[in-house]
Amino acid sequence: MSKGRVCLAYSGGLDTSTILKYLCLEGYTVVACAIDVGQEENWDEVKEKALAVGAERMIVRDCQKEFVEEIVWRAVQCNAIYEDRYLLGTSLARPVLARELVKVAKEFNCEYLSHGCTGKGNDQVRFELAWHALAPGIKIIAPWRDSAFIAKFQGRADLLEYARVNNIPVSSTPKAPWSMDENLVHLEDPNAAPPKNMWKMTVDPLDAPDKPYHFSIDFEKGIPVKVTTEDGKVATESVELYKLLNKIGHDNGLKSRGCYDTPAGTILRLAHIDLEGLTLDSKVRELRDTFVTTAWSRQLYNGMYFSPEREFTEKSVIAAQDGVNGTVKLMAYKGNAYTVGRSSETSNLYSEEDASMDSLDTFSPLDTTGFIAIQAIRLKKYGEAKIASGNSLI
Amino acid sequence: MSKGRVCLAYSGGLDTSTILKYLCLEGYTVVACAIDVGQEENWDEVKEKALAVGAERMIVRDCQKEFVEEIVWRAVQCNAIYEDRYLLGTSLARPVLARELVKVAKEFNCEYLSHGCTGKGNDQVRFELAWHALAPGIKIIAPWRDSAFIAKFQGRADLLEYARVNNIPVSSTPKAPWSMDENLVHLEDPNAAPPKNMWKMTVDPLDAPDKPYHFSIDFEKGIPVKVTTEDGKVATESVELYKLLNKIGHDNGLKSRGCYDTPAGTILRLAHIDLEGLTLDSKVRELRDTFVTTAWSRQLYNGMYFSPEREFTEKSVIAAQDGVNGTVKLMAYKGNAYTVGRSSETSNLYSEEDASMDSLDTFSPLDTTGFIAIQAIRLKKYGEAKIASGNSLI
Amino acid sequence: MSKGRVCLAYSGGLDTSTILKYLCLEGYTVVACAIDVGQEENWDEVKEKALAVGAERMIVRDCQKEFVEEIVWRAVQCNAIYEDRYLLGTSLARPVLARELVKVAKEFNCEYLSHGCTGKGNDQVRFELAWHALAPGIKIIAPWRDSAFIAKFQGRADLLEYARVNNIPVSSTPKAPWSMDENLVHLEDPNAAPPKNMWKMTVDPLDAPDKPYHFSIDFEKGIPVKVTTEDGKVATESVELYKLLNKIGHDNGLKSRGCYDTPAGTILRLAHIDLEGLTLDSKVRELRDTFVTTAWSRQLYNGMYFSPEREFTEKSVIAAQDGVNGTVKLMAYKGNAYTVGRSSETSNLYSEEDASMDSLDTFSPLDTTGFIAIQAIRLKKYGEAKIASGNSLI
Amino acid sequence: MSKGRVCLAYSGGLDTSTILKYLCLEGYTVVACAIDVGQEENWDEVKEKALAVGAERMIVRDCQKEFVEEIVWRAVQCNAIYEDRYLLGTSLARPVLARELVKVAKEFNCEYLSHGCTGKGNDQVRFELAWHALAPGIKIIAPWRDSAFIAKFQGRADLLEYARVNNIPVSSTPKAPWSMDENLVHLEDPNAAPPKNMWKMTVDPLDAPDKPYHFSIDFEKGIPVKVTTEDGKVATESVELYKLLNKIGHDNGLKSRGCYDTPAGTILRLAHIDLEGLTLDSKVRELRDTFVTTAWSRQLYNGMYFSPEREFTEKSVIAAQDGVNGTVKLMAYKGNAYTVGRSSETSNLYSEEDASMDSLDTFSPLDTTGFIAIQAIRLKKYGEAKIASGNSLI
Repeated sequence: MSKGRVCLAYSGGLDTSTILKYLCLEGYTVVACAIDVGQEENWDEVKEKALAVGAERMIVRDCQKEFVEEIVWRAVQCNAIYEDRYLLGTSLARPVLARELVKVAKEFNCEYLSHGCTGKGNDQVRFELAWHALAPGIKIIAPWRDSAFIAKFQGRADLLEYARVNNIPVSSTPKAPWSMDENLVHLEDPNAAPPKNMWKMTVDPLDAPDKPYHFSIDFEKGIPVKVTTEDGKVATESVELYKLLNKIGHDNGLKSRGCYDTPAGTILRLAHIDLEGLTLDSKVRELRDTFVTTAWSRQLYNGMYFSPEREFTEKSVIAAQDGVNGTVKLMAYKGNAYTVGRSSETSNLYSEEDASMDSLDTFSPLDTTGFIAIQAIRLKKYGEAKIASGNSLI
Repeated sequence: MSKGRVCLAYSGGLDTSTILKYLCLEGYTVVACAIDVGQEENWDEVKEKALAVGAERMIVRDCQKEFVEEIVWRAVQCNAIYEDRYLLGTSLARPVLARELVKVAKEFNCEYLSHGCTGKGNDQVRFELAWHALAPGIKIIAPWRDSAFIAKFQGRADLLEYARVNNIPVSSTPKAPWSMDENLVHLEDPNAAPPKNMWKMTVDPLDAPDKPYHFSIDFEKGIPVKVTTEDGKVATESVELYKLLNKIGHDNGLKSRGCYDTPAGTILRLAHIDLEGLTLDSKVRELRDTFVTTAWSRQLYNGMYFSPEREFTEKSVIAAQDGVNGTVKLMAYKGNAYTVGRSSETSNLYSEEDASMDSLDTFSPLDTTGFIAIQAIRLKKYGEAKIASGNSLI
Repeated sequence: MSKGRVCLAYSGGLDTSTILKYLCLEGYTVVACAIDVGQEENWDEVKEKALAVGAERMIVRDCQKEFVEEIVWRAVQCNAIYEDRYLLGTSLARPVLARELVKVAKEFNCEYLSHGCTGKGNDQVRFELAWHALAPGIKIIAPWRDSAFIAKFQGRADLLEYARVNNIPVSSTPKAPWSMDENLVHLEDPNAAPPKNMWKMTVDPLDAPDKPYHFSIDFEKGIPVKVTTEDGKVATESVELYKLLNKIGHDNGLKSRGCYDTPAGTILRLAHIDLEGLTLDSKVRELRDTFVTTAWSRQLYNGMYFSPEREFTEKSVIAAQDGVNGTVKLMAYKGNAYTVGRSSETSNLYSEEDASMDSLDTFSPLDTTGFIAIQAIRLKKYGEAKIASGNSLI
Repeated sequence: MSKGRVCLAYSGGLDTSTILKYLCLEGYTVVACAIDVGQEENWDEVKEKALAVGAERMIVRDCQKEFVEEIVWRAVQCNAIYEDRYLLGTSLARPVLARELVKVAKEFNCEYLSHGCTGKGNDQVRFELAWHALAPGIKIIAPWRDSAFIAKFQGRADLLEYARVNNIPVSSTPKAPWSMDENLVHLEDPNAAPPKNMWKMTVDPLDAPDKPYHFSIDFEKGIPVKVTTEDGKVATESVELYKLLNKIGHDNGLKSRGCYDTPAGTILRLAHIDLEGLTLDSKVRELRDTFVTTAWSRQLYNGMYFSPEREFTEKSVIAAQDGVNGTVKLMAYKGNAYTVGRSSETSNLYSEEDASMDSLDTFSPLDTTGFIAIQAIRLKKYGEAKIASGNSLI
């Protein structure tokens, strides 16, 4: 009799194939499940392999559209970034993966969820926190934190030997980005220059074309709705648009800081920030930058997507974007993207003849004297106190 | 009899020469003063011109070292940035200029300070707020906010005609960055691509060398103390070091976002952020990023350098940097800089074998189960409440 | 011929009566306007006086309901407070006053708005910033910043003499709270104990009853919807409810910190905070407290109610309150209110048997070991680094 | 042979006596240790009991002075509070207890530390995080998270039976505040009014004297240095001063919000906030309130005293207090304290004749016109955009 039904996040790689076989041999019935969030993958091969290893069935779900529209567009809207460097790559996909796995588990009456994340990183935390929120009471099998499993598989050699013994096909297919198994790109030695092949999604900047590539992005409420390129490509559907930007970034050697591969994310962040400079009120921006962007980014990084605080924060992400409409013209060149023009019809916050203090029409220069005088009251006292205490500012 | 003694911030350009003459004709005695904060300038010519136009004397002061060490290094230490784009270029120099002008005014018994900033921008605000703090009670002449002056000079033609009549030599010498008169580089039409000559300090990325240029920066307590290049240049003195980085950036087409020219600033920000990733505690970083960096940047942008809040904030800027020691290896290439290696001997926060959750030595993977369970208590309640209210998260 | 039509914020007091007469004599046609936001006032007398002094007409509008429901309830929802002491009394009423005055000005074709605020405080700023947003382009007459007016009226004696000469009836009617003319209660000598009669809305705590008074407040989404008292009073309509709490506060000597008179505000803040302790997620609360409460309070204090940032912030104020439902039982006694019980049916975040880490059912105590171990990784490194650098923490 | 040497945090109560005996019977050698942080306790009795139960020795250390001066004064300086209600009572003492226990453990060569905190609350977390930082590598025995121990002692009856069998003297001595075993006062039913005897440190407000009690507190750099009472008591030594305020609070029925007992803390927070209103720059205060107070309070609440972030944050706590010098006069009456006067000689930020915008000497009222005009530029655009989009603000 089966010990129970397990829905396993399955990638087709050596790790999850081993886990699949292990669970079967332990007496579980396993529903293998893979989610397409844009990674390059031969799903037929993955399916075949899962069944060969012993899965009761193998489910593949395409969640690209909800991934882009529910999560990635929020990241774009708030210029999400973690520690000034990381555009949150795998963290962004995790909630969509976690949710679809719960759906599949429910559909096929699985009382267990399982994943192949290592016992040492954040990905396991993200998966499991999401699962606890999505399906309170669900039982989780985390083999890489199970003493017996860890004892059995102490290195890659053990996995390969197990595969050999159990007829698990081993094709060292390199996993594409956002694969469920992919971890953050992690430099083993932070002092070593990244090898050329470290960037999977982009060509090396040195190999990128010698000519800039021009294109433009239209935004509505902070969301990209259209990409138009110099060679006549146009994309308006969300996934297609995102992939087109990934291709532009790839071809021109773009990457985000810190050796992470997020070409479309890098371009969109640049373009969106520059459009906000044209359309977003400065005080709203100050509040949004200080509180909302940082909070949302940390929530995603820490696996807190399905949480009261992310739900609360996201309302502010969206609320700030009503006026962020317009077009940004860009060029990509040798590992970099440059904004070469911005325009917006829907905002009057900033315009060529009417920006902040630069127009004689809306105020008198003499007003500035009063503006300075009022602010200076406090500063004069500060200067005087410094003099009085023998710590003159000069 | 003289109406009084004025210390005028003088650049040698058409505007401040006009103001100098105007003040003289109005009956003031004028001490012209220029501050060298790194701009390319022929100070002898400026001197000669000031005297020719009518200044009682012309004072030139070299404040490069204090500019770099007192202000620029603080910006580097806190990764200062304004609205995600602007590395604060002219805002950073303003306090040093303002303070030196007050010193000169005192030295030469001037009861007035004057500047040539337009009546519409932030530069006038920054100058005057600093002056009020530095010399409470000082009197300020801001010609571009004076009704009579404005009425007289309604356009460049009026200035040129005035120069002709009054024998003011007009050499359209383009001012280098950080000139006292320079404003932020301002795209008149934000939808137009910046012309090639917009970047004064950098070559166009398209014209930059086809080969990457490697160099490294050593930091102590978050301050760059040494730059070493692939072709054997070494700089350790602050101003020399900064100029070497400017040259590397210039030659390789680097600029900061938004078409501003701050090549050294761009490189240093990249390198410093990456070194902090290796050496700064994540919780200190979170507090510093959210509160200190944003506050200090806004204070500088808003002309609040000489203020209680900047003094207060700066203590935190410095306090966070005790462990930010190490070397960052970089390469510059075609408009971009890339970190290609980092190392630090003084920090144990992060190391190849011992980073965060990645080492079996410092904790058991099983601990993660408890870590997740405790955090999940709240999330389970959240999920249950959603189900109970008919808004299931799935 | 009239110089133009002015809508004047009129209180019936000496200052605004003088301004009314002065504007008439200057050749303006004046529509006097008073707004009832809860102050004790004989509006018939005010009306009569305005007409006697020379107003074309005197408009009185009752804005109590919108004041309480649009503004005061927001303050309650976010526990608004300024500098830990000031419950924002007059700042809260300003936006409602400003908006109604603009409406009246438009209705009676006034091209000018005028107020009697002194030239030295924040109230003038709040009024005028609101007017500029509500009616861009409107012209404002601020007599207390007009050189001629100031020169003419240098002290109360001048006002009284002018009243005598111009037959302005002078009844030194003390203005009740939220009168348009009332300023913040301002201790002339901060070292002097406040006189007993300083608290207009409350009895002196020493004179309050010797017996506690019990009552309860029901909240829905953070808004008080019902007050029930020990002696059978029940209020559910917003203004009535607020006045009942004011009376309870008054009778029992309650006041907010710093000698300000806001009895209902003090009670509601206490009760709401305690209900949030029972119903608001701790992480949402942390974000709300740090960012939203402080931002909203400052915006109101600084007269920025009609601004993009207040509109933006207020969405978060409301978003946090969905689950803040329940009943708080209180007692008022001798200048203080005490929460003596709380209950909520709609929240499961906290319950007698199931709060945070206090229930064996939702997690195993052993989980805590892992929770601590993961957090301790970083702290151990910190402790080790301290030892290594000779600064042991012990 | 001994299993090893354990330093046990011992209070003399039933729980820690049971643990002491249990550890002895398990084969450990136990050094019992109690820390005096101000609780009322007969230390001789505690000592005798520990030895009777089986401790190798019983150490009592007086850490009152370092508790008050290192921790409590910091809390006062930053107005520390958690969730607007909790003055952090037990959280504040924890670091001092944890550090002294480590010292004692080292002194007597103990390789284990142990405590009697329940397995469900925050106190265990605070103790253990501190220990991991203070003594990286130390081994911890937490009986209430040990399966065998928990299984053995499922309720108070088991503890009492164990005591009877093992001759552990059971005196139900009620523990005073800050006892190591004391948990937060926890209302079992939040809807029940607290019983009169809930407040251990204060009389019931109803029973407090009918006459106000006057006293004053002198502060230097935000730290209380002297308390003077109406009946001639004077205290200047830190512990003595704190105890005097506790007595004043006790006698007059003071407590902090939420039924917690922190009379001196409540008085000091009130007085300090009011003195800051007189002496602290408003912008420094804004930054301090938003970032520093919240961060420090959360760090202490979460047991993160010995952490990089607390060390970082505390520098800002102190940096803000340079000018917070002066005297606050107060009165305590029937459960409340009132500030009745404030004075400061060392600050010129605020003074009777010279506060903010209230003095004609330091600025012209006309300046306000400019101040408002500049700020209104943005608001006018906002109002115009609202009209243009059909969402007029009126």
